[in-house]
Amino acid sequence: MDLSNSYLNKPNLKTLSLDTENQETPIHFITDGITPTKYFYRRNHFSYPNLNQQSLLLPVYGEVNTPLTFPYCYLRSMPGRSIVSVLECSGNKRAYFNPKTYGDQWQDGAISQGIWKGVSLSNLLNLTGIKNTAKEVLFIGQDQGTRTDLDGIFNYAKSLPIEKALHEDTIIAYELNKSIIPYEHGFPLRLVVPEWYGMASVKWLKEIQVIDYKFEGPFQTIDYVYYPNKYNDKGAVPVTTIKINSIIKQPLNYSLLDTKTHEIFGIAWTGSGTITDVELSFDNGSTWKKTNLYGKSSQSYGWSNWRYLWEVKDKGEYTIMCRAKGSAGNIQSLEAIWNRKGYGYNAVYTIHVKVE
Amino acid sequence: MDLSNSYLNKPNLKTLSLDTENQETPIHFITDGITPTKYFYRRNHFSYPNLNQQSLLLPVYGEVNTPLTFPYCYLRSMPGRSIVSVLECSGNKRAYFNPKTYGDQWQDGAISQGIWKGVSLSNLLNLTGIKNTAKEVLFIGQDQGTRTDLDGIFNYAKSLPIEKALHEDTIIAYELNKSIIPYEHGFPLRLVVPEWYGMASVKWLKEIQVIDYKFEGPFQTIDYVYYPNKYNDKGAVPVTTIKINSIIKQPLNYSLLDTKTHEIFGIAWTGSGTITDVELSFDNGSTWKKTNLYGKSSQSYGWSNWRYLWEVKDKGEYTIMCRAKGSAGNIQSLEAIWNRKGYGYNAVYTIHVKVE
Repeated sequence: MDLSNSYLNKPNLKTLSLDTENQETPIHFITDGITPTKYFYRRNHFSYPNLNQQSLLLPVYGEVNTPLTFPYCYLRSMPGRSIVSVLECSGNKRAYFNPKTYGDQWQDGAISQGIWKGVSLSNLLNLTGIKNTAKEVLFIGQDQGTRTDLDGIFNYAKSLPIEKALHEDTIIAYELNKSIIPYEHGFPLRLVVPEWYGMASVKWLKEIQVIDYKFEGPFQTIDYVYYPNKYNDKGAVPVTTIKINSIIKQPLNYSLLDTKTHEIFGIAWTGSGTITDVELSFDNGSTWKKTNLYGKSSQSYGWSNWRYLWEVKDKGEYTIMCRAKGSAGNIQSLEAIWNRKGYGYNAVYTIHVKVE
Repeated sequence: MDLSNSYLNKPNLKTLSLDTENQETPIHFITDGITPTKYFYRRNHFSYPNLNQQSLLLPVYGEVNTPLTFPYCYLRSMPGRSIVSVLECSGNKRAYFNPKTYGDQWQDGAISQGIWKGVSLSNLLNLTGIKNTAKEVLFIGQDQGTRTDLDGIFNYAKSLPIEKALHEDTIIAYELNKSIIPYEHGFPLRLVVPEWYGMASVKWLKEIQVIDYKFEGPFQTIDYVYYPNKYNDKGAVPVTTIKINSIIKQPLNYSLLDTKTHEIFGIAWTGSGTITDVELSFDNGSTWKKTNLYGKSSQSYGWSNWRYLWEVKDKGEYTIMCRAKGSAGNIQSLEAIWNRKGYGYNAVYTIHVKVE
């Protein structure tokens, strides 16, 4: 019986919540460099939005010289820009914080890598012009709903500093993996902000407002903020750039292996600079061995793949640690920086296996 | 946009391993009394077996008066017996053991409930007759492969004591949820043993042998044994009857709630007797409140559904514990009985939620 085309032995998204839908990429079971669209993680703040004809128009207004409304078809006719970029939710790996933090208990799969195509936002802002009072650019999504901590109805909305907004790789995307962006990932238009955690990449773009103040919406000043203290907001810092990070895809944590040669493999990524080394330790961090990096994206926004051939002759229990090093001098530490809302976990990745 | 028939907001099986395929039921997101077949958990010991014309014949031999081979179509023509039964892997909840144990890290979803239809094994054994030397009945599956701990090729094989084999609800099943059993769940014929953990319900039945000795295959004497000690096999006891157990389906662990009335709901089940009460504690086990049991199966092999309306006025962090009590005097304890291979975890189910 040939099972190669069957529905068996296929990974699935891992369900964390439904309506609001949050599902993880089965990252340990996907070896493709680009995450197939159906395996892209889904991360929502509200129910899916209602779209209509109006949703195909993108107004850009505020501190601009000429407010303009860009039709979807016009954006698609402009010179396009393609980028391969990691998209990672800042709550990725939240499940590993100790003490635990509240919120969806993402393990390793709130991360995917896609080919995004769209128009540089800077091209649109060139057409509208920007007043020199401009401080930030505010992106408002079509999605809206209630929150557990505040009364009222809110749209999802996030701002970027003007410099990040004007980076040529900050794009208004209309394609993912060479097809129209699927509805659940932001059709018709989605902001894509490389190097920053996914919360910046606003889906279902409704409007763009150039503002002359610091935006203080709840997804800017309540959520997506590192709060280092449990009982007060002292030392709060906004969540922005993706921290250096890595996972071992295989073998899985607590798996049973035989005495043979096993390929250990995984990925590593960083928002600042590029990955220069991924190292493994078999002695609880005393010594580290370099892995082979391969299949690296030509652009700096993609993750790096790595592998290591591990010949194991002795039965027993083993702890394997993995850490990434970056061109910006950044490196994963043994401990993550705890914060109340559970963002940016990036401690050394550790698995335990038993060879029998 | 009407999303009611879309592919959005649908739960998925949770992938633990592929080829050998092991995937969990998204149990927290399914409210049906009967688990829809596509959401049935998949638990395999080897790759899927190759079937052929021979697979539609079931030989019964050994310590019988007249060895007989039953064709699939003949079994389907015999008087059928339908049972609603929980099927639970003995590794369900393994992820919660502390210290951790090796093997697939099942959380709550290695459990499903189906309507199984087939022929009582006792009817077949009436036709063959049983010699009074018979001690056990051995069930051999079509699936085979290697193990990490032994050399050689093994078929999956398990035995039952003759008394359990002769129980009228121990059936050779050919239907699940009123359709032919899907290939991944044991087509064409699967043994179904109510009250026992799922490892007894051998899939892809190849042959049945009545034996006059104690079967000692690796899935009988190495796996599916409770080993209470880490470094030796003292006190080993075979895994048989499903322990009393329960889960809170919703709310999820570490979720954020608002100050309103929330429905807490879940399921409870036991292999011995029936569930008489499910209780919740909001004060770390000092006092317990009864929940409402509902939608209970008319047969004793099904799980019990329960719910509780929780009115919460004060913001803060809450711990909610859940325990089931059974007609056999059994009750869930605060601690599970640790065992080296991680079977039968059934401690009081505990979640933490934050009301904000």
